[in-house]
Amino acid sequence: MKRILISELRNHLNKEVCVEGWIHKVRKLKAVTFVILRDRSGLLQCVLDNNSFEALELTLESVVSIDGIVKEGKNALNSFELQIEDINIISKVNGELPIEINKENLEINLDTMLNNRVLSLRHRKISSIFKVQNLIVNSFREFLNKEGFTEIHTPKIVKEGAEGGTEVFEVKYFENKAYLAQSPQFYKQMMVGAGFERVYEVAHAYRAEEHNTNRHLNEYVSMDLEMGFIENEYDIMDLEESFLRFMINYLEKQGGEYIQLLDVKLPVITEKIPRIKFKEAVEILKKTYNKEGIEEDLDPEAEKLLCKYVKEKFNSDFVFLTNYPRKKRPMYTMPCGNEETHSFDLLFRGIEITTGGQRIHEYNMLVENMKYKGLNPSNYESYLELFKHGMPKHGGIAIGLERITAKILGLENVREATLIPRDRKRLVP
Amino acid sequence: MKRILISELRNHLNKEVCVEGWIHKVRKLKAVTFVILRDRSGLLQCVLDNNSFEALELTLESVVSIDGIVKEGKNALNSFELQIEDINIISKVNGELPIEINKENLEINLDTMLNNRVLSLRHRKISSIFKVQNLIVNSFREFLNKEGFTEIHTPKIVKEGAEGGTEVFEVKYFENKAYLAQSPQFYKQMMVGAGFERVYEVAHAYRAEEHNTNRHLNEYVSMDLEMGFIENEYDIMDLEESFLRFMINYLEKQGGEYIQLLDVKLPVITEKIPRIKFKEAVEILKKTYNKEGIEEDLDPEAEKLLCKYVKEKFNSDFVFLTNYPRKKRPMYTMPCGNEETHSFDLLFRGIEITTGGQRIHEYNMLVENMKYKGLNPSNYESYLELFKHGMPKHGGIAIGLERITAKILGLENVREATLIPRDRKRLVP
Repeated sequence: MKRILISELRNHLNKEVCVEGWIHKVRKLKAVTFVILRDRSGLLQCVLDNNSFEALELTLESVVSIDGIVKEGKNALNSFELQIEDINIISKVNGELPIEINKENLEINLDTMLNNRVLSLRHRKISSIFKVQNLIVNSFREFLNKEGFTEIHTPKIVKEGAEGGTEVFEVKYFENKAYLAQSPQFYKQMMVGAGFERVYEVAHAYRAEEHNTNRHLNEYVSMDLEMGFIENEYDIMDLEESFLRFMINYLEKQGGEYIQLLDVKLPVITEKIPRIKFKEAVEILKKTYNKEGIEEDLDPEAEKLLCKYVKEKFNSDFVFLTNYPRKKRPMYTMPCGNEETHSFDLLFRGIEITTGGQRIHEYNMLVENMKYKGLNPSNYESYLELFKHGMPKHGGIAIGLERITAKILGLENVREATLIPRDRKRLVP
Repeated sequence: MKRILISELRNHLNKEVCVEGWIHKVRKLKAVTFVILRDRSGLLQCVLDNNSFEALELTLESVVSIDGIVKEGKNALNSFELQIEDINIISKVNGELPIEINKENLEINLDTMLNNRVLSLRHRKISSIFKVQNLIVNSFREFLNKEGFTEIHTPKIVKEGAEGGTEVFEVKYFENKAYLAQSPQFYKQMMVGAGFERVYEVAHAYRAEEHNTNRHLNEYVSMDLEMGFIENEYDIMDLEESFLRFMINYLEKQGGEYIQLLDVKLPVITEKIPRIKFKEAVEILKKTYNKEGIEEDLDPEAEKLLCKYVKEKFNSDFVFLTNYPRKKRPMYTMPCGNEETHSFDLLFRGIEITTGGQRIHEYNMLVENMKYKGLNPSNYESYLELFKHGMPKHGGIAIGLERITAKILGLENVREATLIPRDRKRLVP
């Protein structure tokens, strides 16, 4: 018999069906046993006649195939139940489970959750995180396709890091030394210059940061876009703002059940996301919160305080910080005067989720800026080549997928929004 | 003024507009110069009064911004042209271009094409390859979303290779040795067992094969899926067949202009893709083509001959080869008797584009099969754990994106269907 999903059983009242899934709960009474079956679509109460299945041992989380008749019958789960005719064990669980997952809330710590990922993901409140994450990615792709963007797939094994610094993972590439890409920066710029004009990529990026924090992963999914023929970074901010509006709408419409189950409030996006210059932000932090010592970048506390300020003053969960200091930005960032750049961060509920800006499109300016950054232009020959053959003004952003997911859902650690995280301590599973 | 795409100009007749793009061609006459502008949407003839722009030097592929009036005027490109009022050079090309790209066909060899990727991609016949590739990926995602699949993102830095063999790239992961994933095999099985039941991933996979061939890449995009609660591998083949039908239809509907430009014939998919047992295929090759010496796997010539046979006999561009020999399949493959497995290849126009099959879902059988394969089960502890906690019968496939793209478009080398290929010799750009 063809398997039917639990969510479709209401169309099969009084008929014989086959359902398959995991044994979620078992309650044995004198004459019958109630077996709660779980599949990807929901839970189902099944009723087993103890006389007919005397010898049967049903352990939690075993996978079974059940033939039975769908009967009307109100219970906590559905308006129907299944009268079991036959039951087959496909995969039997022996011994005790390391975590209990048939409760309303898991109530285990993060390490236990990640060490038992296959089991913890079976809990609906955990799997829902990734259903929401998928909607975020889908909304990103759908929005950009609509805006004339082309999806690209670019190399993750690279000869030079794009972001500078030493936080790269080394790869043995035949007789050569190579690295895992910190970002698709060079390649997305290339593809703008190659005539696609507008490109995006959703793929892994790698940062060999040594420190475990609740906001960093060593391997994360970066939603990157790059756009040519802009006037300046404000075109990019406008585009991101439109995307965020689209995304929140998308989550509302398609993610309602998960949002409700996880009991979260979708972000508030005002008519215009406030835009504050970095320098002004420093002043605000000084004046409003006595926060001192910020010169070139905000620390996590400063990000939180600034978001608090913006939420109170403008009722916005988002804020663009513009005119970032030149010293802290990578060499490809378009300068704005001597001290500043045409680049920005987007902060969301206390944390940076996007870095973006306009890039340098002129060969000579780029060479100069490499030198300013202490880099040797001859190490970037193939990248520089790009700017000899006609390059439009362009810019882009990168959004960390796990971060934005975690922040939308109010998760404390970015690892909760990662199926299988990689960090200093986690290389397995 | 806001930039207008060339494809939208017909709605702006007799109005002043701003267009931006690359200078595709220049033809200077006595009184006027014809400038052909190219943007991502098409080509446009612009007319420049030589008297007004005497000193202007317009080099090919320079990026310009042009203000002008859209005038009716039939030419080889459109039913309108642009009377230039003002022209601004955004990025000027100095010196000669390494390749000529304003011709109908590029006519350069593969190395030249890849060495000048930014320029060669500006040719419409080259960029169209990637437009078709995107449609393939979109159709994969759309089809699977419709079938209840969940998209996943799984680690590419792993402790153990899933496919066996030594063809893995080594990564220095802090104090540990790690590898780049050859496939998401373990993780997609995990996610089936974690309750998602049906999952897919479109992401890079890595194979450290030393030999450069026209069918291999060291970094390629793998379209992977895995599905639980199947009966056997025939459920997987049926699913793939439905997907291929969906994909071809999708390409017909949405990719018409690229298919036409590239002058290709979309594959023929018969009512049912022929399914031939591996052993029978060996017999057919012997009998029909005197092809000897095939025991456990087909060589490239055998794949070609078998496809020829199937095309002639069944008029099908596809053929499933089932019951693959156990010796050649990875340890997770479900055996079928002592010699065969519940696994298959899909050949398409002379080459294998998919490997798939049913996987082992029983702990003890898996341990036994690891031993049969000469592997030490204690190296796979975290993977084996999965089979202790309730695992449905399951199977899946992987489709090489560049390969299927190349074969659909009749490209000889898989590198032509790769934006920036990685192979033994190519680590740059």
